[in-house]
Amino acid sequence: MDIRTQKTFEALFALEDIREVFRQALPNTTSPEDEQAIREGVDKVRKILDDIQSGTGNAEVRKIAGTIDIRSREENYINIQPIQAAGRLTPEARKALLAYGDGYSTCDACRKPFRLDKISNPPIAPFHEELARFVNMDQARVVPGARRGFQAVASTLVSKGDSVVVSALAHYTEFLAVEEAGGVVKEIPLNEKNLVTPDAVAEKIEAVKQETGKLPVLVMIDHFDYQYANEHDVKGIAKVAHQYDIPFLYNGAYTVGVMPVDGKNIGADFVVGSGHKSMASPAPSGVLATTDEWAPKIFRTTQMVGDITKRKFGIKEVEMLGCTLMGSTLIGMMASFPTVRERVNHWDEEVKKSNYFLDGVLNIEGSKVLSEFPRKHTLSKVDTTKSFDTVAQRHKRKGFFLSDELSGKGIIGEFAGATRVWKLNTYGLSWEKIHYLVDTFQDIADKHELQVNRSQLL
Amino acid sequence: MDIRTQKTFEALFALEDIREVFRQALPNTTSPEDEQAIREGVDKVRKILDDIQSGTGNAEVRKIAGTIDIRSREENYINIQPIQAAGRLTPEARKALLAYGDGYSTCDACRKPFRLDKISNPPIAPFHEELARFVNMDQARVVPGARRGFQAVASTLVSKGDSVVVSALAHYTEFLAVEEAGGVVKEIPLNEKNLVTPDAVAEKIEAVKQETGKLPVLVMIDHFDYQYANEHDVKGIAKVAHQYDIPFLYNGAYTVGVMPVDGKNIGADFVVGSGHKSMASPAPSGVLATTDEWAPKIFRTTQMVGDITKRKFGIKEVEMLGCTLMGSTLIGMMASFPTVRERVNHWDEEVKKSNYFLDGVLNIEGSKVLSEFPRKHTLSKVDTTKSFDTVAQRHKRKGFFLSDELSGKGIIGEFAGATRVWKLNTYGLSWEKIHYLVDTFQDIADKHELQVNRSQLL
Repeated sequence: MDIRTQKTFEALFALEDIREVFRQALPNTTSPEDEQAIREGVDKVRKILDDIQSGTGNAEVRKIAGTIDIRSREENYINIQPIQAAGRLTPEARKALLAYGDGYSTCDACRKPFRLDKISNPPIAPFHEELARFVNMDQARVVPGARRGFQAVASTLVSKGDSVVVSALAHYTEFLAVEEAGGVVKEIPLNEKNLVTPDAVAEKIEAVKQETGKLPVLVMIDHFDYQYANEHDVKGIAKVAHQYDIPFLYNGAYTVGVMPVDGKNIGADFVVGSGHKSMASPAPSGVLATTDEWAPKIFRTTQMVGDITKRKFGIKEVEMLGCTLMGSTLIGMMASFPTVRERVNHWDEEVKKSNYFLDGVLNIEGSKVLSEFPRKHTLSKVDTTKSFDTVAQRHKRKGFFLSDELSGKGIIGEFAGATRVWKLNTYGLSWEKIHYLVDTFQDIADKHELQVNRSQLL
Repeated sequence: MDIRTQKTFEALFALEDIREVFRQALPNTTSPEDEQAIREGVDKVRKILDDIQSGTGNAEVRKIAGTIDIRSREENYINIQPIQAAGRLTPEARKALLAYGDGYSTCDACRKPFRLDKISNPPIAPFHEELARFVNMDQARVVPGARRGFQAVASTLVSKGDSVVVSALAHYTEFLAVEEAGGVVKEIPLNEKNLVTPDAVAEKIEAVKQETGKLPVLVMIDHFDYQYANEHDVKGIAKVAHQYDIPFLYNGAYTVGVMPVDGKNIGADFVVGSGHKSMASPAPSGVLATTDEWAPKIFRTTQMVGDITKRKFGIKEVEMLGCTLMGSTLIGMMASFPTVRERVNHWDEEVKKSNYFLDGVLNIEGSKVLSEFPRKHTLSKVDTTKSFDTVAQRHKRKGFFLSDELSGKGIIGEFAGATRVWKLNTYGLSWEKIHYLVDTFQDIADKHELQVNRSQLL
């Protein structure tokens, strides 16, 4: 780890140790020992600050709790990992984690009716309203990951043996949510462009009806799939689903938080997003939004009555299991939200950078982009079988030569050892980093005597 | 907020801003602007350190992301809130949150077979093994809260209309988990001591069989309940359940992480614990552990096959929905674990402090402890109707007089405004704080002319 990053962590940690002195002390009282600990802590931080400024010193803290390495991937590298890019925290989210880490920190001012989304301090209730507006739906709840949103919808709508129509590129969590509810997934085949079309959805619905004698109970489609991040015609698909009176779940794991999403305009009955994938939020987090029509079903409150005590917990929602995302996970999500809400307006620029980078990769002869091109997303699948893999074939480090070269230049997040088909994500990288990426990939190609067509000027 | 705590947060935040400079910069490169930002940041932290040391300065950062107050409840108060005490983070967990906040931070080294609990760096796989050993069960998974553990078990075992036997003091999340699975809860009545006895469980099982023609499919009991934190004879209850061949779920939300729990000795088929309630962990977190006998059912892997693509995701567990707790939530849990594993050995001392404090409360004439007494837990329900509530009756602030008095002395976490029946938790407080609590409660009693029997010397 770069020493200045290391020292920044050490300063943060030393401040946490000072903070712990206040935690252990009596209210507004410090003992001479406390004062000494604070003084020593402050002195320690001062020395570390000298090192941060001058880039001097040696690593003094290497592990957290004795076994966990300090993670500096985002500080010391350009990270092109396919699923991490848009989940990277904002500084505000990191500050929220600092301040709200304690388990039930959200619950200090929990009052009647005792439900997370009703708490007004911290402003959790208004956040829920803003979240619903953000995706233009009527109501929203936070959930521990998009998968828990799929689960809530599937558990409500799917009975044993029911069919759910998903894409041939559906994420595995959609499979699991349907399976957990006792249903069966039915995949929609892709067209020659690796897209799910509304026509194919209609055909699949008809085929399911034919085969099982029953219509599917849900159509669930990823706006951009996790494999190619191709854009599928969700609006057209929602329309088809509704023609059969089947509700439509919009999987926005790769859209909500990075690009504008208008659930009503799409015709979504449910919009699911992922906090840690696309909303600069801690994991596990996500959002499930729905319409006023569906809310009473998906967010139905408990009807169970204790047979002895006659207890009822009327305000608690069954599929949410009551409160969902407590503590720093939620507050981190909230702290990033102003940034996230603003950043979706710059999606075009992100896509432009994605295309610019891939143009640079395509200039390395033999390279291909397997995702639709030009890109409409920052996640992409590339095929470098006829470029970098030809080097790997003759290199003693095999495919790891590319990882070695990249990490030597401060680039990380490619699938280590993969030089044929692999994915990457440029979301949130500055133009400066994008240029650096292109230069580095092309320099590596040069070094290994691959042809780089720089004439196709970027 | 105390100015030194305030300044500690400001220093932490300023360091996060420095860290962000490294995040935005090219690898191992800083521009003159970056250097200036770092220099200014370092100078800022230096000034803040002066303020921390001398207790000077004014608050300069009041909100995170413009709307979220900085939370300093644990730094500036003694917090006796009933559910927060044992979820309070260790310093190591706070450092883990710092370093692993980014959404998918756990997934840097995810390799085949691509499942969270198989990742060895950070050491997630060994942590899972240690977790299982910690509660003396065969296998364990982390889950986003104890409720998600109940859900996984209920969803596996409970079919529509099935009965699940729970305590008349069962937590509402047990109700919801059963309801979500389509089952019905059947409560076991309490004896005169507010305890669930094995005999009562046997009677209830017989009654359910009589009434529904079928045995219950699950017995789910809280070792210490959330209302009184009375200890219920889980070992005896497990034995009864097994006599009917019914599996037993041990709800350890108030035990796993604070006292030793031996699942095998108890005879538990499932042990569920809460990270944010009792394991000094960020929310939402928890553990679900089971035996080798039950693991293939509860942790069954997906059998779903894509009808078009023939895709299978064989390693992914249906009830876990694949991976469960990513990012800082899990790493925070792991960072606290060495402390948690050690602290359960000091449970007797925690109980001693709990009893000492309550003796002090009982010395205030008219006060009662509604939980079993002497206490076997640090969570307790008290009744001050005939002590503090008599003051509230004639006070212009009503029940809030007590909150005012307590917070004026740096004590927080009682249910604001409640002076009749309320709960508190002394877990993790030092003897110094316990003495301070007793003195403060008795001083408040004195001030309002309640009789304090100090002759019963503590």
